[in-house]
Amino acid sequence: MDVKKISDDEIKLNLSKLTSWEIKEGKLHKLFKFKTFNQALSFMVGTGMVCEKMNHHPEWSNVYGNVDVKLVTHRVAGLTELDFKLAENMDKIAGEINLRKD
Amino acid sequence: MDVKKISDDEIKLNLSKLTSWEIKEGKLHKLFKFKTFNQALSFMVGTGMVCEKMNHHPEWSNVYGNVDVKLVTHRVAGLTELDFKLAENMDKIAGEINLRKD
Amino acid sequence: MDVKKISDDEIKLNLSKLTSWEIKEGKLHKLFKFKTFNQALSFMVGTGMVCEKMNHHPEWSNVYGNVDVKLVTHRVAGLTELDFKLAENMDKIAGEINLRKD
Amino acid sequence: MDVKKISDDEIKLNLSKLTSWEIKEGKLHKLFKFKTFNQALSFMVGTGMVCEKMNHHPEWSNVYGNVDVKLVTHRVAGLTELDFKLAENMDKIAGEINLRKD
Repeated sequence: MDVKKISDDEIKLNLSKLTSWEIKEGKLHKLFKFKTFNQALSFMVGTGMVCEKMNHHPEWSNVYGNVDVKLVTHRVAGLTELDFKLAENMDKIAGEINLRKD
Repeated sequence: MDVKKISDDEIKLNLSKLTSWEIKEGKLHKLFKFKTFNQALSFMVGTGMVCEKMNHHPEWSNVYGNVDVKLVTHRVAGLTELDFKLAENMDKIAGEINLRKD
Repeated sequence: MDVKKISDDEIKLNLSKLTSWEIKEGKLHKLFKFKTFNQALSFMVGTGMVCEKMNHHPEWSNVYGNVDVKLVTHRVAGLTELDFKLAENMDKIAGEINLRKD
Repeated sequence: MDVKKISDDEIKLNLSKLTSWEIKEGKLHKLFKFKTFNQALSFMVGTGMVCEKMNHHPEWSNVYGNVDVKLVTHRVAGLTELDFKLAENMDKIAGEINLRKD
């Protein structure tokens, strides 16, 4: 996987393919809102296994059903394809959990 | 929550409200088939938190995307409302994970 | 479990029984430093199950091996025995994970 | 990582470096006994992340604090270095959890 810092134009293009992600202080940011703590933690575990596989990890915080995610590639001090790939995976995993009615 | 052993008639009635659960050797049984190990383990974590809350735990095995669940209430050596309540919760949690396309 | 706001004297007494917890902006705070993301997430899952059981949840953030925890009881807008009970449980669960050498 | 089936002599040598693992029906087997369901599930999550990273997964079952593990490499219908590598990782992760007194 490419770990070169990507250009502003590429960032814009990548962002346009994602839903509700935005750039904040140079990081790729999204707030996931689940209904319960259980869902939030299940999301973190499901996502966490993907992170380990990619060897790429988020900065994230959790309060009850909310998971606030910031992605950045520290070793290039900027955004790379890794961040957008992880964002995509997070959306996929969150997609169905979000629908839970428990 | 009631932990009295329930009658065969009540078991039949409870079973009729669930999907794909059956009685096998006196235990409430279902095989959950997820597409990935990641989904299976997320399901186990989400379900596990409910189990801790209910103080009621399954016998289950996992191979890759499959989670084979058996529920029984050991202290009454039979089935109770706890087992059916947990089955219902498992179905709810599995419901959306199952749809994941990752 | 008591959910009354506790006095400053009781807070001091409770704090004296814990290691490395401090009060910051009215919340009970500790930074747990694990060696790996794997350990940090295992800690969050182990702790998360206790939270569900207690029906009391933290504000926490994670970056790689670090888990930054803040505890407060929102419904009394202050600290209660619940916060100190959860802190104690977190220390217990972190205790051994911390030693991992993986 | 080597995924060639290993010889009986290599199996013996590898086994001698592990604690409490044995060969049963051609699989590498160990029963992990934790004190609580919480510990067992934390172990499964910690281990699960390693499995995803290695792309190698166990057959395992859980009842309360017990996790019964069987390892085998299906695509060679036998044991490989992957199984012993995963066994070693499981022991490392279990090592400290086991000590928990919660």
